[in-house]
Formats: sequence, structure tokens, C-alpha cells
Amino acid sequence: MNNFNFCSPTEFIFGKGAQTETGNALKKYGARKVLIVHGSDRIKSSGLLGQIEKSITDAGVEFCEYGGILPNPTAGSVYEGIDIALKEKVDFLLAVGGGSPIDAAKAIALGVVADEDFWNFYNGTSKPRSALPVGVVLTIPAAGSEGSGNSVITNEITHQKISVRYPDILRPKFSIMNPELTYSLPWFQTACGIVDMMAHIYERYFSNTPDTGLVDSYSEAILREIMDQALTLKLDGDNYSARANVMWAGTLAHNGLCGVGKIEDWASHRLEHEISAFYNVAHGAGLAVIIPAWMSYCSKRNPDKLWRFAINVMSVDPAGKSTDQIIEEGICELKNFYHDLGLTTNLRMLIGGEPDIDLMVNSLHRNMGDTLGCYVPLSMEDCRNIYKLAVDSE
Amino acid sequence: MNNFNFCSPTEFIFGKGAQTETGNALKKYGARKVLIVHGSDRIKSSGLLGQIEKSITDAGVEFCEYGGILPNPTAGSVYEGIDIALKEKVDFLLAVGGGSPIDAAKAIALGVVADEDFWNFYNGTSKPRSALPVGVVLTIPAAGSEGSGNSVITNEITHQKISVRYPDILRPKFSIMNPELTYSLPWFQTACGIVDMMAHIYERYFSNTPDTGLVDSYSEAILREIMDQALTLKLDGDNYSARANVMWAGTLAHNGLCGVGKIEDWASHRLEHEISAFYNVAHGAGLAVIIPAWMSYCSKRNPDKLWRFAINVMSVDPAGKSTDQIIEEGICELKNFYHDLGLTTNLRMLIGGEPDIDLMVNSLHRNMGDTLGCYVPLSMEDCRNIYKLAVDSE
Repeated sequence: MNNFNFCSPTEFIFGKGAQTETGNALKKYGARKVLIVHGSDRIKSSGLLGQIEKSITDAGVEFCEYGGILPNPTAGSVYEGIDIALKEKVDFLLAVGGGSPIDAAKAIALGVVADEDFWNFYNGTSKPRSALPVGVVLTIPAAGSEGSGNSVITNEITHQKISVRYPDILRPKFSIMNPELTYSLPWFQTACGIVDMMAHIYERYFSNTPDTGLVDSYSEAILREIMDQALTLKLDGDNYSARANVMWAGTLAHNGLCGVGKIEDWASHRLEHEISAFYNVAHGAGLAVIIPAWMSYCSKRNPDKLWRFAINVMSVDPAGKSTDQIIEEGICELKNFYHDLGLTTNLRMLIGGEPDIDLMVNSLHRNMGDTLGCYVPLSMEDCRNIYKLAVDSE
Repeated sequence: MNNFNFCSPTEFIFGKGAQTETGNALKKYGARKVLIVHGSDRIKSSGLLGQIEKSITDAGVEFCEYGGILPNPTAGSVYEGIDIALKEKVDFLLAVGGGSPIDAAKAIALGVVADEDFWNFYNGTSKPRSALPVGVVLTIPAAGSEGSGNSVITNEITHQKISVRYPDILRPKFSIMNPELTYSLPWFQTACGIVDMMAHIYERYFSNTPDTGLVDSYSEAILREIMDQALTLKLDGDNYSARANVMWAGTLAHNGLCGVGKIEDWASHRLEHEISAFYNVAHGAGLAVIIPAWMSYCSKRNPDKLWRFAINVMSVDPAGKSTDQIIEEGICELKNFYHDLGLTTNLRMLIGGEPDIDLMVNSLHRNMGDTLGCYVPLSMEDCRNIYKLAVDSE
């Protein structure tokens, strides 16, 4: 186990009716004027935005609103948000929704206090020193952004989708998590969220750092539990227990707990980001295509953890089977699980045509340099081969 | 799953050489003059205290020292610490050691800023509004106090050992955790620590709150891992990996993560506190006696979770066995594990004579009222029977 620092100071306010605590939480953390950043009309039409606004007003806090943040939030939407935040002189950002408004709110929070282009903090030109505080009302469990210091923004001009991690300044002060608010999520979004949160654990689980027995064991337990709860949810989307367990799992998958003391990988996420940047598919749907291809490709060069994954997470019975067979069966079971969720594991099917692999690999190279990931360090040729595997995947 | 608030803001600075970060951490969290609270001479003779003092001096922070805190720290030692802290005008407490100096430091932190007797915050007379900040250099993984808002103090005049939980003001700002510092721990203390951290999970695991699949699953994973690592440590006390995994498990066992959304029990801890209050035995050694007795007693009235525990934690094969047999085998395996650690599960053996059960039950009644615990609400007669079971336990 490597040395590590772990600090997860976000206050999670979890459970039925929790959104009525929004105003109190904002007041507790010192907000005087809040910019509410949100995405879909569902937030308004369901009455959620009204409940939140009432709670904020009751707490004596001022607010203004910036809606319309789309999935894979763009740099353009961040610039617009920064303008509004500066004009309205807000001192707090409140994201309502899933990863997209949360990540946009974090980017706005960085941009408002910076004396340079916020995009510099994403493309690696410079590092931010501070940000406005951010709070969250979560309605889509997936990105884990409600408890992380991460933010992913897509620059629509340069076609770059880049993830950053600034835990000291970007972790939300509080996150309001009411599982009931996810009842109305379409199944496709629920399924994509499940794939995404599981991937956040894989990116940490598949590591060569030795002696990480404890974190590996509880990561496996969380993965198994997500799969169990997902199958319940598929049959009964209004099952509070399954919604609650999945929501909490999504937070633990990405608040750092599953990565303590380990070198993390993140190749699959970066391979996927090129797909969603160029073809604008849902991130989780892209991961369902990339992850099995990445696993198959890596299994020849570094089978150890994939073997453990097959047995401990995918419940493959190892009796009488070779390592290769066990791993192959594990990957097959994972694909079956994605298919059960209603997702394809074939890249051509996902984007509805032939992907431009050269385009994606060239972009990867520009964004990430010559190699990707740590579990198996991937050259750009390896990345090309993984995309090809995904194109022909069953 | 019940509604919950979870916030664990402590910064954990974990790994080899971490103690050299003490000064920087104190400075980061605003300390100007620190009272170092510690226990054993081992801290001094090992050179650890010198390293810490150098680190503090290098960071430009002043310090003074209060040593000699004994296991089961007393109210008397807290009063003495409060006097020193006031006289020296310190603004920060740094505990170096295990649960005893940490809990004493927390009590001093409460007492210094209070305009009443600190004991009022323990015996239930009043609630504290604030405390001085506390930092930790952990040398004994057991109590979990390095990440919790809890403190346990024994009043030697009134013979009361009382635990309080004030997470908003008592969670340490930072905890420095170097597993190498635990190499020199005598095996008995290592073993007692292992029993204690496992018990912190049991107190949350054995709950009647429904639909807590996720937290139950990762709790089970942590329990299994502690047992595996403990058996490695018994053969090789200088095994860094096992020391590191056990140390991190001790923190997760008690920082609240394993209790989210659940009604907790804590009967076993309270039953044990009477033993260590009257017979001054190590807390972990007392728990090894009480927990199997508590499990046996509760198994008739509420078998469900004990059945799951036997299978998922103690790895009992359920095939062809009745529920009773499965539970009994699980408890038997747990006793065997305690015996492997070199601990007795018999109360008479533990205290070297016949316990005064009336004395303990009367004290329990005075401290806790008419009932204890939630998994099976125990009357004072039940508590008496559990002590009796422990007296005759194998």
C-alpha cells in the first residue's frame, strides 16, 4: 500500500425529503447569494426546483438561476455561467441534477475567482488556487461528482473532453441526496449511471500497487452490491431500497475511498471520453463498450487482477478452469450484465455507424501524450487496437 | 435504509514517515501553541516524540507536553490536562498514541473552552458548544478515535466509564497514521486492538434497520480482511502490509461509514465498559469475552443477522445445517479466532476471579437506564444473564 492523504469533507445529507434541507445547508456554509445551476426541464416540471427555491428563500438566502446545462457540459456553457455569476455577484454555486450540472458548477466556481481563462485549469496550462464553494442536490447517481473534487468539461471548439481533479478546492461543501428524486429517471440513464459508478471503482481496482487487500475487498463488495441492486431496479424502478443503495454506492465509488494507497488507471475513462466527445453518446453507454474491450486486451499482458475480478466480483467458479478461461468467463459475465441493463457492448451499434478510430486516437494523443493508464501502460497503437476490439465486440 | 448525515472531514495522512508531517499539518490547521498529550514511555524511548517535536519546531509552532495518560483515561487526568492547557494558553491539542491519549485530548479540548465541569458533557447534564481543535499521531490502531467524534472517559470517583459522540466538534482535524509506528506494539495490544475495531463494526452491523445491503456488504468485507491480516500479523509483526491494512480498517470501522442509515446497537460496548471500569482490564480483552456471550444470548430472540454473519463473515458453510447450527458454528469460529489471537473468552479467566455481577449490573442501570441496545433490547436481567454466560464461557 502506498502512502496517501485522504480527506472527504463533504457533508452528505441523505434520505427522503432531504431537498427541503437545501436552504439550511446553504446558510450553514455561509451562502448569501446562490447561483442554481441545473440541466433538464425535469427539475422544473417535477416541482423539485420550486421546493428547493422555497427552502432557500425560507433560509433567508438570495438566489438566481442558470438552467439548460446539457449532458457532456461544454466550455461555452461554463463561460456563460461565469458571466451570470459575476453579474449577479453570487458567492455560492448550487448544482441541481447529475454530473453535468455539478461539473459545470465546479468549472464556473473556478472561473469566477480566476484572473485567467478557466479552460487553462483543464488543458494543463495552469493550476487554480481557489474556487467559490459548491453545494449539490443530486438527482442522477452516476458521476460521483457530488463527493469528488473532479470535473469533466468538453471544449466544443477544440473537441477536447478533459477531466481534472482538484480535491482541495472542488469537493462540494454539502450534497443533498434523496433517492426518491431518482424514481423518475428513465431506465437508460439509470443504467448508464450504474455502468459509470462501477467504472469509477474499476479505474482504482485495476492497479499494480501491491498489498491493498482491504481496499480491494471493500471495492469488490461495493461492485457486487451495485450489480445486485441494479437487477432489482430494472424490475422495480420505484424500489426505495435499491435506489438508496445505488445512490450511496455511486458516492463511495468516486470520493476516493476505493483508491486509497493505490496507483489508479483511468485508461478506460480516457478512451471513452473520445467517443462521447466526437459522437455525443452518454458516458456510461460508452464505458459499457470500452471496458470489456479494455479488459480483454489487458488480460494477455497482466492477468492477475482480472482473474481476481472474475472470481470475486463476477462470481466465476474457478474449479477446473485455466486462468485464461476464468478471465474470459468474467468478461463474458460482465457483458451479459451490461446487456441485461439494455446496453450494447459494440462500438458500431453504439454510435450507429463506423467510428473514425484515427480521429479518436489522434485526439487521445493530443490530450494524453504517448501512453495511457497504469495497470497496462497503453501505447497509442494499443488504444487503436482496443477501439478495434470494441467495434467487433459481441 | 434510514435517512442519515455523514461527514468525515478529518484529513488522514497515511504511510511511512508520515509523522514528519506533524508540524506542517498543525500549521495548516492554524495551531500556534500545542499541548502534546501522550501516554507511554514508548513514545519517548522510541524517539517518536523527538521526531514530532522537531517537526513542530521546524514548522514554527510552539508546544508543551502532558505525558502519562494511562489506558482507560480518567477524569482526573483530564482535569490535570485542562489546567495545563489553560496555564500554557494552548490553542490546539495533539494526541500521540492510541485511543487513551486521543480520548483524553478530546475531553481536555472540551473542558478548556467550557464554563462548566467537562464531566457534565459525559454524564448527560449538558451538551458542549465547542472545543479546541485536536490532531492525532496514531500509534495503536484500535479505538478508531483518530477519525471519530467519540471519546470515552472513566470517572474514577464515581466508577463510571462513559462514551460520548460529538462529531461536529470532536472529529480530529488531521490524523497522522504511519503503520511502521505499530511494529513495536506488544502482541497483546495488537490483538486487543483487532478485537476492538471488529466490535465497532458489529455494533453497527447488528441492526434491525431494513434494506442496508450495501453498508452490510462492505462491513463484512472489512471484517473478513481484518481477520486475514490479523493472522498474518501474528506470524510476522513487522509485516508492513498487514499493519497498514489493519490500521486503515480500524479507522473505517469507527468513522461512521459502517453505520450510515442504520440504528446502531452498542450494548456489547456498554456491557464491557463495566468490566474495564471495575477490573481495569484492556477494553479489547473485555470485548473478546462479552461479544460471543452477547451473540449467543441474542441468537434465540433475533437470529437473522447472526445467521448472515456466520456465513458471510465467519465463512460457515450452511449446507445441510439448521439456522441454530449455523449461528452456533459462527460464534464458535469467532471464539476460535479470539483464542488464536491469544485472548480468553471467559470472564473469570479475564479478571482472575469471580466477577461481582450485581455491582456491574447496578452500575449499568445507573449509567444507561432500564434497557440497553437495539438489535435485541436488553433488560437489566438480560445483561445479568449475558455476564453469567461470559463467566461460564469456554
